[in-house]
Amino acid sequence: KMLGRVLCMVLFVGAFPCPAGASQGHISVVLLGATGDLAKKYLWQGLFQLYMDQVSSGHSFTFHGAALAALEPGQRLMFDVLKKLSCHPDQAPNRCAVLKDQFLKLSQYHQLKTAENYTALNREIEALLRQEGLREAGRIFYFSVPPFAYTEIARLIDSSCRPPAGAWLRVVLEKPFGHDLESAQQLAAELAGFFREEEMYRVDHYLGKQAVAHILPFRDQNRQFLDPIWNRHHVERVEVVLKETVDAKGRTSFYEQYGVIRDVLQNHLTEALMFLIMELPANVSSAQEVVQQKLQAFQSLWGLERSSAVLGQYQAYDSQVQEELQEARGYVSTTPTFAGVLIRSDSLRWEGVPFLLTSGKALDERVGYARVLFKNRAYCTQSGTLRDAGHSQCKPKQIIFYFGHGALNTPAVLVSRNLFQPVMPKDSWKEAEARPDLHVFGQPLSDFYMYSPVKERDAYSVLISNIYHGRKDFFITTENLLASWAFWTPLLDSTSRQPPRLYPGGVENQHLLDFEMVNGGVAFTLAEPGQLLNAGGQMPSDFRAIQSKFRHSPLVSAWAEDLISQLASDMEEAAVRSVARSGQFHLALSGGSSPVGLFQRLARHHYGFPWQHTHVWLVDERCVPLTDGESNFLGLHRHLLQHVRVPYFNIHPMPVHLNRRLCVEEDGGAELYAKDIVALVANASFDLVLLGVGTDGHTASLFPRSENGLEGAPTVVLTESPVKPHQRMSLSLPLINRARQVFVLVLGKGKHDITTLLSRVGHEPSKWPISGVSPSSGQLVWYVDYEALLG
Amino acid sequence: KMLGRVLCMVLFVGAFPCPAGASQGHISVVLLGATGDLAKKYLWQGLFQLYMDQVSSGHSFTFHGAALAALEPGQRLMFDVLKKLSCHPDQAPNRCAVLKDQFLKLSQYHQLKTAENYTALNREIEALLRQEGLREAGRIFYFSVPPFAYTEIARLIDSSCRPPAGAWLRVVLEKPFGHDLESAQQLAAELAGFFREEEMYRVDHYLGKQAVAHILPFRDQNRQFLDPIWNRHHVERVEVVLKETVDAKGRTSFYEQYGVIRDVLQNHLTEALMFLIMELPANVSSAQEVVQQKLQAFQSLWGLERSSAVLGQYQAYDSQVQEELQEARGYVSTTPTFAGVLIRSDSLRWEGVPFLLTSGKALDERVGYARVLFKNRAYCTQSGTLRDAGHSQCKPKQIIFYFGHGALNTPAVLVSRNLFQPVMPKDSWKEAEARPDLHVFGQPLSDFYMYSPVKERDAYSVLISNIYHGRKDFFITTENLLASWAFWTPLLDSTSRQPPRLYPGGVENQHLLDFEMVNGGVAFTLAEPGQLLNAGGQMPSDFRAIQSKFRHSPLVSAWAEDLISQLASDMEEAAVRSVARSGQFHLALSGGSSPVGLFQRLARHHYGFPWQHTHVWLVDERCVPLTDGESNFLGLHRHLLQHVRVPYFNIHPMPVHLNRRLCVEEDGGAELYAKDIVALVANASFDLVLLGVGTDGHTASLFPRSENGLEGAPTVVLTESPVKPHQRMSLSLPLINRARQVFVLVLGKGKHDITTLLSRVGHEPSKWPISGVSPSSGQLVWYVDYEALLG
Repeated sequence: KMLGRVLCMVLFVGAFPCPAGASQGHISVVLLGATGDLAKKYLWQGLFQLYMDQVSSGHSFTFHGAALAALEPGQRLMFDVLKKLSCHPDQAPNRCAVLKDQFLKLSQYHQLKTAENYTALNREIEALLRQEGLREAGRIFYFSVPPFAYTEIARLIDSSCRPPAGAWLRVVLEKPFGHDLESAQQLAAELAGFFREEEMYRVDHYLGKQAVAHILPFRDQNRQFLDPIWNRHHVERVEVVLKETVDAKGRTSFYEQYGVIRDVLQNHLTEALMFLIMELPANVSSAQEVVQQKLQAFQSLWGLERSSAVLGQYQAYDSQVQEELQEARGYVSTTPTFAGVLIRSDSLRWEGVPFLLTSGKALDERVGYARVLFKNRAYCTQSGTLRDAGHSQCKPKQIIFYFGHGALNTPAVLVSRNLFQPVMPKDSWKEAEARPDLHVFGQPLSDFYMYSPVKERDAYSVLISNIYHGRKDFFITTENLLASWAFWTPLLDSTSRQPPRLYPGGVENQHLLDFEMVNGGVAFTLAEPGQLLNAGGQMPSDFRAIQSKFRHSPLVSAWAEDLISQLASDMEEAAVRSVARSGQFHLALSGGSSPVGLFQRLARHHYGFPWQHTHVWLVDERCVPLTDGESNFLGLHRHLLQHVRVPYFNIHPMPVHLNRRLCVEEDGGAELYAKDIVALVANASFDLVLLGVGTDGHTASLFPRSENGLEGAPTVVLTESPVKPHQRMSLSLPLINRARQVFVLVLGKGKHDITTLLSRVGHEPSKWPISGVSPSSGQLVWYVDYEALLG
Repeated sequence: KMLGRVLCMVLFVGAFPCPAGASQGHISVVLLGATGDLAKKYLWQGLFQLYMDQVSSGHSFTFHGAALAALEPGQRLMFDVLKKLSCHPDQAPNRCAVLKDQFLKLSQYHQLKTAENYTALNREIEALLRQEGLREAGRIFYFSVPPFAYTEIARLIDSSCRPPAGAWLRVVLEKPFGHDLESAQQLAAELAGFFREEEMYRVDHYLGKQAVAHILPFRDQNRQFLDPIWNRHHVERVEVVLKETVDAKGRTSFYEQYGVIRDVLQNHLTEALMFLIMELPANVSSAQEVVQQKLQAFQSLWGLERSSAVLGQYQAYDSQVQEELQEARGYVSTTPTFAGVLIRSDSLRWEGVPFLLTSGKALDERVGYARVLFKNRAYCTQSGTLRDAGHSQCKPKQIIFYFGHGALNTPAVLVSRNLFQPVMPKDSWKEAEARPDLHVFGQPLSDFYMYSPVKERDAYSVLISNIYHGRKDFFITTENLLASWAFWTPLLDSTSRQPPRLYPGGVENQHLLDFEMVNGGVAFTLAEPGQLLNAGGQMPSDFRAIQSKFRHSPLVSAWAEDLISQLASDMEEAAVRSVARSGQFHLALSGGSSPVGLFQRLARHHYGFPWQHTHVWLVDERCVPLTDGESNFLGLHRHLLQHVRVPYFNIHPMPVHLNRRLCVEEDGGAELYAKDIVALVANASFDLVLLGVGTDGHTASLFPRSENGLEGAPTVVLTESPVKPHQRMSLSLPLINRARQVFVLVLGKGKHDITTLLSRVGHEPSKWPISGVSPSSGQLVWYVDYEALLG
């Protein structure tokens, strides 16, 4: 009742022109966690800013702070916060005082704990609206609470506090949104039970930072300059960096669970990167188009591998964890506090351009930026001394979105003067004044056009304004979130056991955290300094491949990723040897999922592979069109062939599709393939055959209890698989056994039983066709990962 | 007789230990042009050096200076030169005096003009040898004469002055060796009539410069460091540069015929580049292996186009030419005195790495170098200020072969300290002392390991020593020479009419000659400054494409290169439009030689072409296996498909080879192709068909007076060509006429008659099949070059 009168006063008696009877309707803002740190520091101030900005918008507002505390203490705590709210310095002080007074009157504390509490809040809002004769425009629920509370609060809002039909609901969620793909999926699924996608606003406060938020508008407004250069032909690299000087002290209970990748890279830096690399939608303010293009950009990224990252941990971290989490003295954390990650894209635009994401605590400076460095495409005929005068094309060319802090100590957009003078919106960005002493990224500031915001705005106030405006492009959609977790989770998994490099912290780090791109991944530039290694000789040795015997043949075993890189190297070596010997390399490859990682590794890491002289054959094929998703050849094409330069004539898909029909005996596809082999492969002896093993002991498309292809002539046969698609074409066992080398790749826990079995049985191809693989004069090598070997 | 006694004295009575009776035999050196500039400046000194170095080698020597002048004045002139010979400063003065005295006594002047003169010289040598009882080891004839005299002298040496069997002949030739491919071939053919290949030593004195000569040994001795980085993944660019401060004054009669490309780039800079980019032979001192690899490197280079070069001319050049060559005041020379050229290679090692060759007169400094700049692959986590201390990986990485002059004023090899410490032969290269004040290539000298020669040697003295040692790898073989001319001649032809940019000369040039890589070529960075253009409005307009009508359809005409670039752009535009409309682009291409340039242009300049969504079909095919040299598909593959990323499934060669036989009616290849078209191309209407025209008016493989394929159903047909291979497969005219767009490309003088005829005749496909091309609802555009159009 009290609130009702205040609202009227503000609306109709206030010191300002009456906003046409609040014709746009009323908005109730509920801040959950109203007395928490984030609310104190940013959110109330953001809401006050919203109120000041929108007081004349035609909307009326009420603000409901909520927490678990009882009314009396909660209220006191909350109003202590509200009293400290401030206006922007350029606001007239008496107008500020009036607005603040109104805002305080429109704000109220609620204990929100039980379903009854939520029902009561709902009733109160309804009563107020009835009383004032206001239409309800919508409700905003801002979740500034720990994520474990999300589901219950979501249930209560959905069941007891939804606005009526015709008014909108916007729930604002703060990270963390899970800590890997699975947990994020689970949380997303739970929330989806209560809210529609368009009702959810997941905050990544980086999207509210002015320099980040301006990336897309900048790209849009400067299309004419950027179109010709925003691609792999002109861009040398992209860096997205957040360096902090603080460490995790006092926050290790959170940090120990998350680490730098989950805390900074998976969200903030990834989002900034996406704005830089996504295709520019026709309408950059269409949230839908932006999200669509962002998802496509995620699809274009290469999967991360362990070698994609370097990880570090500042030396004091362990003792901080021991102290704060009451861990034992000997406790060793592998949580990284520093990460440098190399990301690459497959897109036509960015193929080959390295994207480097870096973040860490306890570094030498506090700074954040996204930087696009262009290639030097110029030759400056005049000598060096003269070259430095003026804005020579031989100087570096870069575009930098400077998030803040660092030498500039302001958000900024910088464009090298030898690139172009950018178009910037005059109402929000102004040219920064000259600071002749200052250098950034190795160049004097005078080498850049530099713009800073006309009015510096806090990220949360930007985001709260965007929630009000329903600008969903400033928030993380569920699809976006899951795409990001899907991208990062494999790296988190593969590095979870990896001890990070220890660094002393601050300027003492020197070159210890510098890293380089090598072999398609990254590695620290300096060798591991012995004196900093606390684990010493106790390094886990499980990254080294072990060598032994399996079924009387050489066995190579390691964790899957290492095994695959060993296999790929061995294949390259075989190829180089074969080309040196005969000018050609005849390689027969199996389909299925196991070799996908191998194909990718060959395509990405083996520049020296003699593809120009390699013939690629199929070990087996499913009787489907080559462009069918089930086709072995399609997988081979997608993961390998389209990335390397094998001549068209050297690619030999199996002719399963002749006369526009599939594997019909009379069409003679198998015979045709056999003839091609005889015609091209000397002695019908492949240089290398790559096989897999099924859980039933099948290999190639040779299945147990079907005699077809197990004995007789070295040829190509049609076979029947027990699983769909049933019809197959396959090299026969005798043909496989003519090869100079046969490598068998076995990956994953699912293969443990058959691996164990195979280690015990003899030559029984009709039971287990793989047991019949025994090259008559060639070499057989088993590549079995630890999971398959050891279970 | 006089000489005979001297020789004896030197051999047996000299102040030095007698060299075992000259057991290695006698060498006669004949210097033709003994009183010319080159001889005065370098050659006699080089011969004296040879004598000093080899006096104890077991060989005895005589030196025969020769010229056209009569004995008396010639002798005087020559001995005036010989008197000025000097020893290296570290030679003991009295030993020097003795050696010089001996050398003078062993030297003799001859008038060599007529056959009789040569016969007389031959007799003299024979007599001397007989008299002294010496075996003849060989004869060296050094041609320091104008090239027009080469053939006649060669004939006389061959007929009248060859050494007897068992002794070798080495003729040393000075450039120019022709001024384009044709003239070089002619000169080479003439010389080949008189000398065997192994007898000819063509001098490029750059190969004698110590820093150039050390490129291959350096690569060999540092294989372990260079192997991983000497490739496109690590090298950002290669620059080979010779800058001069002098201009052509006093030499314009030579220069006006040659220009900077022939004078410096075709020979000196190209040779240095080849040493950098060729595959390293197992034995770098095997001349044969080196030449072999160098030729292969030439084969890997992309052909030069007009856009591969920027050309300049210093402003005073025209008036110097007018004065020295007595040309009229209005005479305008287009001879370039400055050139910057972009060269690219197709090899796996270098694909995508720009090689920039630059040379010019009247520039700001005198310096020559070959520089390999490496990519920055590092991210330096520590901030910029600290980064500069020590040898950070974030600093530039380069290897420089410094030919001489410039800031260092000595030949040198420089390797960035953040790369590696090179292995250098201690007997010939020493570490250079620190010069803290000096910067090279934007870095302090202290950032480099720098080596300079223990003993600086003049290029000619190095070369003369190599002639003596028979080291043919220091000289230009005929194959090498012709490969270089074959590479450069197209650029010389295509730029012959192009007015070079005028530049004031010296430091005044400022940024006027800076250039950039754009669209696969190079262009000056600054726009043409109006005030420097002397030609003003009189620029030749023939580089612009003219637009008109031909046979009632649009006609685009230009010189061939411009026409092809226009056509390629129009094709890209059609492709982009089609993909935007339907997601696909169905392109049918013709074979033959005309489209080769087009294919190359598409592969090299059209990064935006949507190849991933393009289907490539053949307009016609010869009935040969796809891998046969005659196959249209093979040409298409070589020049286009292997360079772009068209998915395997989207490539549709014509099935001329079925059941291991060619174009047999019953195999139904034509029907199969027609069915594929119907299945994949909507409405069997190609988005774009590219055609050519034969001199007989044929198009595709539809020939005059053969009704097959000219009428009836839109299908694929087997046809007969009047020329071999006779059997062909072709799209039919009705199928072609269903296309949305048909482009017809007609190039060259040879097509002028048929072009003229076609401009006059109507629709008579049975006489001239091309006249039947008339898309029923699509668009037809003619692309006819000036030569075909205007004759």
